[in-house]
Amino acid sequence: MAESAKPHGMQPEETPELAELYAGFARHSIMPLWTQIGDLMPRHPRPKAVPHLWRWADLYPLAQKAGELVPVGRGGERRALGLGNPGLSGNAYISPTLWAAIQYLGPHETAPEHRHSQNAFRFVVEGEGVWTVVNGDPVRMGRGDFLLTPGWNFHGHHNATDKPMAWIDGLDIPFSYQNDVGFFEFGADRVTDYATPDISRSERLWCHPGLRPLSGLSDTVSSPIGAYRWEHTDRALNGQLLLEEEGHPATIAEGHAAIRYINPTTGGDVMPTIRAEFHRLRPGVVTQRRREVGSSVFQVFEGGGRVELGEQSHSLEMGDLFVVPSWVPWTIAAESQLDLFRFSDAPIMERLNFARSAVGPDA
Amino acid sequence: MAESAKPHGMQPEETPELAELYAGFARHSIMPLWTQIGDLMPRHPRPKAVPHLWRWADLYPLAQKAGELVPVGRGGERRALGLGNPGLSGNAYISPTLWAAIQYLGPHETAPEHRHSQNAFRFVVEGEGVWTVVNGDPVRMGRGDFLLTPGWNFHGHHNATDKPMAWIDGLDIPFSYQNDVGFFEFGADRVTDYATPDISRSERLWCHPGLRPLSGLSDTVSSPIGAYRWEHTDRALNGQLLLEEEGHPATIAEGHAAIRYINPTTGGDVMPTIRAEFHRLRPGVVTQRRREVGSSVFQVFEGGGRVELGEQSHSLEMGDLFVVPSWVPWTIAAESQLDLFRFSDAPIMERLNFARSAVGPDA
Amino acid sequence: MAESAKPHGMQPEETPELAELYAGFARHSIMPLWTQIGDLMPRHPRPKAVPHLWRWADLYPLAQKAGELVPVGRGGERRALGLGNPGLSGNAYISPTLWAAIQYLGPHETAPEHRHSQNAFRFVVEGEGVWTVVNGDPVRMGRGDFLLTPGWNFHGHHNATDKPMAWIDGLDIPFSYQNDVGFFEFGADRVTDYATPDISRSERLWCHPGLRPLSGLSDTVSSPIGAYRWEHTDRALNGQLLLEEEGHPATIAEGHAAIRYINPTTGGDVMPTIRAEFHRLRPGVVTQRRREVGSSVFQVFEGGGRVELGEQSHSLEMGDLFVVPSWVPWTIAAESQLDLFRFSDAPIMERLNFARSAVGPDA
Amino acid sequence: MAESAKPHGMQPEETPELAELYAGFARHSIMPLWTQIGDLMPRHPRPKAVPHLWRWADLYPLAQKAGELVPVGRGGERRALGLGNPGLSGNAYISPTLWAAIQYLGPHETAPEHRHSQNAFRFVVEGEGVWTVVNGDPVRMGRGDFLLTPGWNFHGHHNATDKPMAWIDGLDIPFSYQNDVGFFEFGADRVTDYATPDISRSERLWCHPGLRPLSGLSDTVSSPIGAYRWEHTDRALNGQLLLEEEGHPATIAEGHAAIRYINPTTGGDVMPTIRAEFHRLRPGVVTQRRREVGSSVFQVFEGGGRVELGEQSHSLEMGDLFVVPSWVPWTIAAESQLDLFRFSDAPIMERLNFARSAVGPDA
Repeated sequence: MAESAKPHGMQPEETPELAELYAGFARHSIMPLWTQIGDLMPRHPRPKAVPHLWRWADLYPLAQKAGELVPVGRGGERRALGLGNPGLSGNAYISPTLWAAIQYLGPHETAPEHRHSQNAFRFVVEGEGVWTVVNGDPVRMGRGDFLLTPGWNFHGHHNATDKPMAWIDGLDIPFSYQNDVGFFEFGADRVTDYATPDISRSERLWCHPGLRPLSGLSDTVSSPIGAYRWEHTDRALNGQLLLEEEGHPATIAEGHAAIRYINPTTGGDVMPTIRAEFHRLRPGVVTQRRREVGSSVFQVFEGGGRVELGEQSHSLEMGDLFVVPSWVPWTIAAESQLDLFRFSDAPIMERLNFARSAVGPDA
Repeated sequence: MAESAKPHGMQPEETPELAELYAGFARHSIMPLWTQIGDLMPRHPRPKAVPHLWRWADLYPLAQKAGELVPVGRGGERRALGLGNPGLSGNAYISPTLWAAIQYLGPHETAPEHRHSQNAFRFVVEGEGVWTVVNGDPVRMGRGDFLLTPGWNFHGHHNATDKPMAWIDGLDIPFSYQNDVGFFEFGADRVTDYATPDISRSERLWCHPGLRPLSGLSDTVSSPIGAYRWEHTDRALNGQLLLEEEGHPATIAEGHAAIRYINPTTGGDVMPTIRAEFHRLRPGVVTQRRREVGSSVFQVFEGGGRVELGEQSHSLEMGDLFVVPSWVPWTIAAESQLDLFRFSDAPIMERLNFARSAVGPDA
Repeated sequence: MAESAKPHGMQPEETPELAELYAGFARHSIMPLWTQIGDLMPRHPRPKAVPHLWRWADLYPLAQKAGELVPVGRGGERRALGLGNPGLSGNAYISPTLWAAIQYLGPHETAPEHRHSQNAFRFVVEGEGVWTVVNGDPVRMGRGDFLLTPGWNFHGHHNATDKPMAWIDGLDIPFSYQNDVGFFEFGADRVTDYATPDISRSERLWCHPGLRPLSGLSDTVSSPIGAYRWEHTDRALNGQLLLEEEGHPATIAEGHAAIRYINPTTGGDVMPTIRAEFHRLRPGVVTQRRREVGSSVFQVFEGGGRVELGEQSHSLEMGDLFVVPSWVPWTIAAESQLDLFRFSDAPIMERLNFARSAVGPDA
Repeated sequence: MAESAKPHGMQPEETPELAELYAGFARHSIMPLWTQIGDLMPRHPRPKAVPHLWRWADLYPLAQKAGELVPVGRGGERRALGLGNPGLSGNAYISPTLWAAIQYLGPHETAPEHRHSQNAFRFVVEGEGVWTVVNGDPVRMGRGDFLLTPGWNFHGHHNATDKPMAWIDGLDIPFSYQNDVGFFEFGADRVTDYATPDISRSERLWCHPGLRPLSGLSDTVSSPIGAYRWEHTDRALNGQLLLEEEGHPATIAEGHAAIRYINPTTGGDVMPTIRAEFHRLRPGVVTQRRREVGSSVFQVFEGGGRVELGEQSHSLEMGDLFVVPSWVPWTIAAESQLDLFRFSDAPIMERLNFARSAVGPDA
């Protein structure tokens, strides 16, 4: 097996003595490395998670139906439909580290307040009308907005309108569960503030480019910004493409504009475990083939194209979500202008020094 | 259930429509949060891993027997007996993040060279005679020594004597496997240098207190020190206890001396995922009850005592190993002077901001 | 002398032998500490620089007159009138570390390009019509804007209009000169780009709140933002005062809003040696008496009030500049709403661990 | 003037109007840039400080004589002979940032305790018998030892023997004085502890290679190590030369071993303003010509050779001290094995981003 370090001829002969030794191992909670090393320590990451794409056209109707049949409230906490990676059966894990779900809130419903160690964000591919209340600060959710609920902040949601609304939740639930790091606490059964301001207090304090309030000079682990608005993201991406047209360096590749959402107190990622970015490809652009350690999830915000995911190939339409497990090569081709939201576990990989990537046709 | 956020009365009524919805979920690789949240997001960490103690008196004879029956060489790579946490059945994981094993090398045997992303160390509770060759630098292994093989360094071992030798290996294999970050590469089938110097080149360059070679001014992700010698550890611990006797601050609690092994280029942990420490308790000292997020493994180096691990209680003797899973309370009581080696995944918890602890009788 | 460590009775008796010793010292370029320690190492900073205020009503006419009489061009480089601290006679130093000048550019004049190690900024208290071209990027200068030229960036200015314009320059020239760190290089005799865009390329790439271009992921020593626009500063300050009115934490003291200009790649100061801030006091607000290690310069942007500077007291009007040397106590009282631009050498003090402050009536 | 940016033909014509303008400047504490820029902002650093060498053979007898004639005690504080750079007349500054002095303590004398913001160290080129007491911890001073008194630590010295002792003090007094950052406080008139241990408490806690006390996990601005012993320095340098002989990378250039003294909590410089290193050159080695921003002081610890300092050339003997001002090229040639202690203001230059160097024959 060229690709693995699987055990082979070096395995010991199966004798009664060996059987007895192995029985001794079992009695004493011991397992030998030599029978396992090929699986445990492969030549390169061989994730159980598989590349997969979920169609918005499938997800949204199911969410609507859940809106009719499943109440939201204390205990279940959220009407969230987790995307379960087919390779990680039995868990609603989109990858070993990440959780992605479509959450749905009917007219005038409230999802009660709670807090947890897990870091969370929301991204809105369509709709409006819900406010998420984070530590008492009501944050409007609108199309294209990226909204934060870092670990251990109380948060609830309420729909202030007569129409339902759905959006995407991203969290580090699998990582947290696997590594036994999670705490959870219930808060108010209703949200603590039903006000519906256009702009949250966090934005009023923090969303002035290049300016930092003197009342907020201590760096924070996660971003203090509650909402990253679509108008800023859109303008930043357009700005890059126009600069490129004028002959100045601005994009990361020809016809490929991209921003990272950051913590303004450090310039780094918004939360310790989750990176979030937004990419815009001009029509006809094809990204370079690329592999990365760690897993990513993309959602198509607008436009159409195709993605190659290892051996798979999928067309892309508005709202579709796909996951790229660790070291699976991927390429995206834009047919129309293609806008993509992306999130990943890259901060974990970088902080623990496991990040690696390969780019190019041979990657 | 006071201790969990388990779903309860809020679960929807089981109707044919709901069944159809759930079938739709299944067809589209979706799992609802509301049926799972209590398990996925408990009030506090509820590890599947259990506290457990392995007796050196059990381990060593099994290692000896393996020495007779199981060859060491390319493919199996190492004669290593992994300690499998009884709560994590089917894997040789001592915790969700950590691997601990006893490795055994017979007279004049060689474990071939390889390298991998996984970070590794060795700790020697008894014996001598093996050299580990790390990127070509032969490092003597002796009783009480702590030896590093950070990720992606080639390494092999050879026993230069007529006697077998056993020691403990610690790695981040479970973390690496779970998160799909591992690369592996074979090296030489024999070690590249059979020299048997007392002191490695890494020590000759780096083990001068407070001094840094000008040829090594770039900080390194992991420590450049190959071996942390027992004589230094022992002297540092004695120094703390003597300073305490003389009335000066030096210990972390009365009668409790402790050091952390560090990367001299940063003053931080030796490797990005693993912390290692050595503790010395005077006879009669009982540590405060303590819970911590993340998992730890202790090995008794010398002396005797007891450990309380959640509901369990174990006597401690030389060589015994025990694991403390996340948030399990623990207390150690020294009968004689008690020397303990400890390693943990604390750098993961701290770098990702999940670290938490509670100390005191109510912890 | 209660306040000093001046030498006193411990001075040796003046004998012929001592005179000979002192002569030996002189011959060998030696000076004894014991005759100097009181001056060299006072109980607290005793700056030679004195608090001082310059009136805009004096400065601007002199700048205008210089505009008539003094050409601008290669060699003299800039028509800049340095504010010379009366305590630091002979040098145009406003403090031991900082340079502040009023610069004046007549209609259609060009100040040629050059670059230097010294870090520079401009702040515009009134007027418009000049573009500063920084490494080829034309940056419009308007009232209330704060503009950067970090060390070793080529820059020139040109006035695109029929009216003159004046503004304030701030640099670390004294620090650079004193410590022999400066390099200087001539660039183009004309600016490299006479375009007059509203918004610079640096702003188009970097001025989107919470967003970072993926093409700019390497942190930079100084801010990549060329212009911090008045509209953002004004909005940020108003936001803080409104939040305060609504009962939320936002200001640094009651009625006192303030922002710091930052490097978005780090969240830290805009340049390694200079901090810049903007303060807004509501009418009637009086700041707490405060002393700080390091020197600061304030310019009144709008409104009126008074400043107490050690023993001095000055009324404040639009455009007035004053310097607060190290450890001189200061208090500002706002009569109308008072807007103040401030810059200081605080990054030097903090990075070298000399920062200290005292606040309150006894400070 | 190729080397300067001196003003030239661009100076305005000297008319009565200009004279009146200049008089207006003077009245209002204004100085124009255009008459000064060539001096203020030269093409490269042009220090007033000059390269200079002081002979130990001159210094030591003067110190002895001062020992006879000048008492040591409260007020004068120290019997320290500052080396005054001939280019910086009137101040005992060896460079714009650094102070270097020979300090002398007669048999059984005490230099009283005080503390100050200024960072200090001592280096011992010969002799023994004095203990420096730093925050109550008595630290033996011996030949080749490097001893720290970081800012704001109380310290005094006493000679426990019947023989006098001299050593070198290094501080950042000029930097501190120039920038008005210094505080000073008297302590005990006698030292607080006359004990004479071989090893200080700081060493007992901190001088174990690669080990950090758990009681000292908070990083400190300056090194917690009171004494860096000669035996460690000597062994580290020999180790590098032996490794080089064996064919392994260890030295910074052929035949040139060097270490930096570091803060073990960070791996960085011992104090925020001062770097200290020790260099050993094999006989016949000549260092590359080198220029650096910032100033350095060297003391010959043992051996002989020559130094080229800009246009100067000096022979080197035991104890000789020389200063290299900013951007002055220097080359050292070893006749015998040459051991050199070096200290500099490099941390200032690096932290403020002014560091630059040029190496090679054209530097």
